[in-house]
Amino acid sequence: MIRKIVFGTPFDTEAVTGSFQEWEGEVPYLKEEGGRKFSYRMEENDVVYGLGENVRGINKRGWLYESKCSDDPKHSEEKHSLYAAHNFLIVDGAEHFGVFVDYPGMVTFDVGYTDIDMLTIEAKEADLALYIIESEAGEGESISENIVKQFRALIGRSYIPPKWAFGYGQSRWSYMDEDEIREVVKAHREAGIPLDAVYLDIDYMERYKDFTVNEETFPNLADFAAEMRKQGIHLVPIIDAGVKIEDGYDVYEEGMEHGYFCKKEDGKEFVAGVWPGRVHFPDMLNADARRWFGRKYKVLLDQGIDGFWNDMNEPAIFYSEENLQNVFNKLGEFRSENLDLEKFFRFQGMVDGLANNAKDYEMFYHEHKDGRVRHDKVHNLFGYNMTRAAGEAFEELEPDRRILMFSRSSYIGMHRYGGIWTGDNLSWWSHILLNLRMMPSLNMCGILYTGADLGGFGADCTEDLLMRWLALGLFTPLMRNHAAMGTRKQEAYRFTKTESFQKIIGLRYVLLPYIYSEFMKAALKGDMYFRPLSFVYPEDTFARRVEDQLMVGESIMIAPVYEQNAKGRYVYLPERMKLVRFFGSEKESEEILEKGHHYIDVALDEVVFFIRPDHLVPVSAGGCCVEKVDFSNLKLLGFVEKEASYELYDDDGYSRDYDNPANRTRVCMDKDGKVTVWGEGRTFTAV
Amino acid sequence: MIRKIVFGTPFDTEAVTGSFQEWEGEVPYLKEEGGRKFSYRMEENDVVYGLGENVRGINKRGWLYESKCSDDPKHSEEKHSLYAAHNFLIVDGAEHFGVFVDYPGMVTFDVGYTDIDMLTIEAKEADLALYIIESEAGEGESISENIVKQFRALIGRSYIPPKWAFGYGQSRWSYMDEDEIREVVKAHREAGIPLDAVYLDIDYMERYKDFTVNEETFPNLADFAAEMRKQGIHLVPIIDAGVKIEDGYDVYEEGMEHGYFCKKEDGKEFVAGVWPGRVHFPDMLNADARRWFGRKYKVLLDQGIDGFWNDMNEPAIFYSEENLQNVFNKLGEFRSENLDLEKFFRFQGMVDGLANNAKDYEMFYHEHKDGRVRHDKVHNLFGYNMTRAAGEAFEELEPDRRILMFSRSSYIGMHRYGGIWTGDNLSWWSHILLNLRMMPSLNMCGILYTGADLGGFGADCTEDLLMRWLALGLFTPLMRNHAAMGTRKQEAYRFTKTESFQKIIGLRYVLLPYIYSEFMKAALKGDMYFRPLSFVYPEDTFARRVEDQLMVGESIMIAPVYEQNAKGRYVYLPERMKLVRFFGSEKESEEILEKGHHYIDVALDEVVFFIRPDHLVPVSAGGCCVEKVDFSNLKLLGFVEKEASYELYDDDGYSRDYDNPANRTRVCMDKDGKVTVWGEGRTFTAV
Repeated sequence: MIRKIVFGTPFDTEAVTGSFQEWEGEVPYLKEEGGRKFSYRMEENDVVYGLGENVRGINKRGWLYESKCSDDPKHSEEKHSLYAAHNFLIVDGAEHFGVFVDYPGMVTFDVGYTDIDMLTIEAKEADLALYIIESEAGEGESISENIVKQFRALIGRSYIPPKWAFGYGQSRWSYMDEDEIREVVKAHREAGIPLDAVYLDIDYMERYKDFTVNEETFPNLADFAAEMRKQGIHLVPIIDAGVKIEDGYDVYEEGMEHGYFCKKEDGKEFVAGVWPGRVHFPDMLNADARRWFGRKYKVLLDQGIDGFWNDMNEPAIFYSEENLQNVFNKLGEFRSENLDLEKFFRFQGMVDGLANNAKDYEMFYHEHKDGRVRHDKVHNLFGYNMTRAAGEAFEELEPDRRILMFSRSSYIGMHRYGGIWTGDNLSWWSHILLNLRMMPSLNMCGILYTGADLGGFGADCTEDLLMRWLALGLFTPLMRNHAAMGTRKQEAYRFTKTESFQKIIGLRYVLLPYIYSEFMKAALKGDMYFRPLSFVYPEDTFARRVEDQLMVGESIMIAPVYEQNAKGRYVYLPERMKLVRFFGSEKESEEILEKGHHYIDVALDEVVFFIRPDHLVPVSAGGCCVEKVDFSNLKLLGFVEKEASYELYDDDGYSRDYDNPANRTRVCMDKDGKVTVWGEGRTFTAV
Repeated sequence: MIRKIVFGTPFDTEAVTGSFQEWEGEVPYLKEEGGRKFSYRMEENDVVYGLGENVRGINKRGWLYESKCSDDPKHSEEKHSLYAAHNFLIVDGAEHFGVFVDYPGMVTFDVGYTDIDMLTIEAKEADLALYIIESEAGEGESISENIVKQFRALIGRSYIPPKWAFGYGQSRWSYMDEDEIREVVKAHREAGIPLDAVYLDIDYMERYKDFTVNEETFPNLADFAAEMRKQGIHLVPIIDAGVKIEDGYDVYEEGMEHGYFCKKEDGKEFVAGVWPGRVHFPDMLNADARRWFGRKYKVLLDQGIDGFWNDMNEPAIFYSEENLQNVFNKLGEFRSENLDLEKFFRFQGMVDGLANNAKDYEMFYHEHKDGRVRHDKVHNLFGYNMTRAAGEAFEELEPDRRILMFSRSSYIGMHRYGGIWTGDNLSWWSHILLNLRMMPSLNMCGILYTGADLGGFGADCTEDLLMRWLALGLFTPLMRNHAAMGTRKQEAYRFTKTESFQKIIGLRYVLLPYIYSEFMKAALKGDMYFRPLSFVYPEDTFARRVEDQLMVGESIMIAPVYEQNAKGRYVYLPERMKLVRFFGSEKESEEILEKGHHYIDVALDEVVFFIRPDHLVPVSAGGCCVEKVDFSNLKLLGFVEKEASYELYDDDGYSRDYDNPANRTRVCMDKDGKVTVWGEGRTFTAV
């Protein structure tokens, strides 16, 4: 059951789909103060789940989180905000309920930071819609899962990408021209490392202008895209939030002509500095501007592009024109001073403080259907609506095929238009674990198509880090290796042990029938693809503690290694499971392990996973790209004690004909390995 | 056996004590190139130990480390240097040997970073002394321990602090005056939380001038120190490397008069900016300057101070006068530009690049007994020699008592004059583990008196973080809670669960007889206080993998909890051990656990440790400060299967009369709890 309680006059974020009856009674569970502060005393063993893209654990206790989309690549544990604002959480303890704070400005979630036992949620203003969700689960069902399911029904179906977007992608900020990309593709193919996509970071544009292509380095994008497609490769260009101020540049001129850019109080366009230098921000909250911006993607669609990533859409601001001038004016004053502690830090702080300065976000406005609104009050909706611009345009421009789209910044609601990647992380071992922990939190909030920059975006990657990270990443729907300019090159073929990478990345394609099927079923039913163990084993008190293992779909549990030089790890089994080492050709090894604690050896080039009793995992023979994977002749990995049944979802991978009954095939296997199939056109054989 | 191989004309770092016969043959084990590059192919299971203060694991494989003392408070795993340069490592694998590279400039240790299987050591110049250490261990003895013991004999006895320095200390950058410190002391005493020292960060000085005291905020330091001493509290002021340029300031004027400051090529004193603004650096490599600077500590000794910490002695440089002017000149040029990606990053990079700029370290010189030398070539010796300045002065000024001294920057050799703290860390959970991992690496390099800033220096601490960190910190010789200005206040009494802090910090005082005894024996015999498990159980292949447990002295193994919200952890027991929960009054619980893997519950307010079979741990009844701890009437915790024996070291805690036979008491306990003591004046009773 969901209760909606409204305070003041909430801004219509459109996070929730459809209309909803308001609850007129008191706020259940939480103590409310002034319509913007809600608190709850937690008991020692209460767990708090949710908050989507964030630092720290699956259990969010012990920190202060701020919903304030921020461009901050250093995801260290002391941060309070990352790129997104996902205001949904579940308290699982003495009481068990979900909370969604639908408010587009700053919200703080003090989950036992100030007082170790207190949860305090505080919005900047008392204009918000609060949703309290109570379980409708029957006896023995998972309460947390039920709460998520209700929440997901409230916010609408999650974005579904094309099937090829489940292949492995390679990206780097600094692929400077066609030839460099050709070389990357060739090297993967020669090394026998599968690949489906190469991402174009900002380098492909002409001086970082959206919807342009640098004609010197990419003389004919349409031809190049076609050439790549023949090799099974999709090119996926980046789109930035800011539009360069430049006379003669059509996007700039059209935006100016129609008044589509965000303006300051004086009615003049707000000027921010980003990649191209001075830019304007399209007013993504203005429906006309959004439609205009969305249709610009056609320029690239028309050149054979079928996937995009939206970046810098918090929006990130290197500086505002006003503040930059202000800083320049003040810098000179320091020149004649003895720069001691206080003065030097002030001097340096002024320059460091140029980027993403809170004051800049108070300087510009949006023209929303419900009236003019200052940006900071709706800050968390910008990236969401940029992606919505594209998503709505794609439905119009490409009604018959899915276009890949994921965004850096997001708010709940955006999950209907695109996925996300988890932003600019680092080549840190601790970011493997952070990647793992974010996944179920994001799924709770409706974001299913997601993944981290594998190998780490910033800082220098090592061979072992990349291997271990890929061993997690091969289970994430978005599986992309991405690195920043200036860092060590980290394409898988750059290191010494090519065969190990072939084997690990190859496993993604072997498991693809299962991964795609589980993703699609979760998206279509409003379920989670990644679940914390405690969601599946709610009665298991130890499962509540597990912060480094995940359930992937209905059959698999994973327990990746995320410590450098580790030769294995401890794993908790909430029930008897089968440990499998399988890479596509033959069963390398399998072992039945009892419920409880185990130490498992996992060599650097190995990936192990665990199959639940009486569950099946359909696998393919692999392939160098998604379209080469044979989904018709599958093998079945299984842990069958009595009998196991599995519903495989598969489709053409492009159309939106999700409800076609031919997409679903049921298969059964008994304990002797006898397989029965209901449905046409597919064979399954026991491994 | 140690072989010394000399290349070129090494600078005399005085890291090694006494003279040493050179080896004229080839370099054993390593492939040598050009007298400055040494490489070694590692096998898959080889472990590399050492490198002292550094990021990453006890096993250093998989990263590139640079010996280049750096002021960089962000100890993230991508860093290559921290505050110290400790060029000693041990390869433990197919072959087993130690390497010490005695070279005071930049050395890189590529331990499988570029190529996962290659160890490459590279010094900037081919003027160095290389020591290769081979084990002399007998059958069944620990080879690694033997190598360390030989190395420690080579570099001389480690610094020994007074006994009170094993008490708990509280520090914060921003204790602004006497009253604030009185309040901190009072609050600890009222909360029943033991305390022995309050550290004075830079705030006590008059405008950050070394050896001055701010007369407004600390009107009479001698009186205040005496008042504090009556309450069992020692005040420990900070001393910085740079001397403020200010007419009338005696230290500045004397230094100028005698030419004791570092000069540029043109003979003029080098000007750097640090806390006071413009400063000169005393030439710590000039014996006369060093003696002069060391004797300055007398100003504070005469006011009743008996402990110091040396800071900013990498030396840290906020800016050089030359580069600052250069940056100011260039900043204006950016004003009229459109600051795009490239220009904006260059603009911001210029300002960010002011601090600790490599070029600045090439601008000044030292007048060493062997000639003039450019700073960057001997960079890693500065902090060492600043601390040596103090250490040598203390031996002269205070021959009959020990003075507390620890430093931020260090090089091997400095360990004879002071301890270290591990520098400006952060309130990160991962820094608990980093703290743990550094401890044995530091011990290998001779640095025994050491500890991290408990609770974390930068960033905001949480109650659970502090508790878990203290549970490790109570075993480190230096046990200090320290935080930076602007962060959340983190004195133990600031949080909600005062009794838990009382209990955890109280345990330090309960264990003090053991901790002090083990520290002193290790220091006097050249042993390690903290050891990796593999040093004690060399035949145990799993022990080699353990990166989050330590042996503390001869009887105890620790396995701290370092994950937020964890209610316990996995522990590997390399042999049957007794798990103990004991806080001084009665045995809370104990349990015999078999060799192997265990999951152990550890509540937030609990500390567990493990006692080896037939080993004893002498404990006291605790106390509010070290001098209140009764070392005469002790209890014995033990895990006695047959019979256990323990040699207790204790002394007056002040004098240097370490060899007095009265300092050592032998005690035995049989399996029925019967205790026998050899020595006078102490009682021991079985718990």
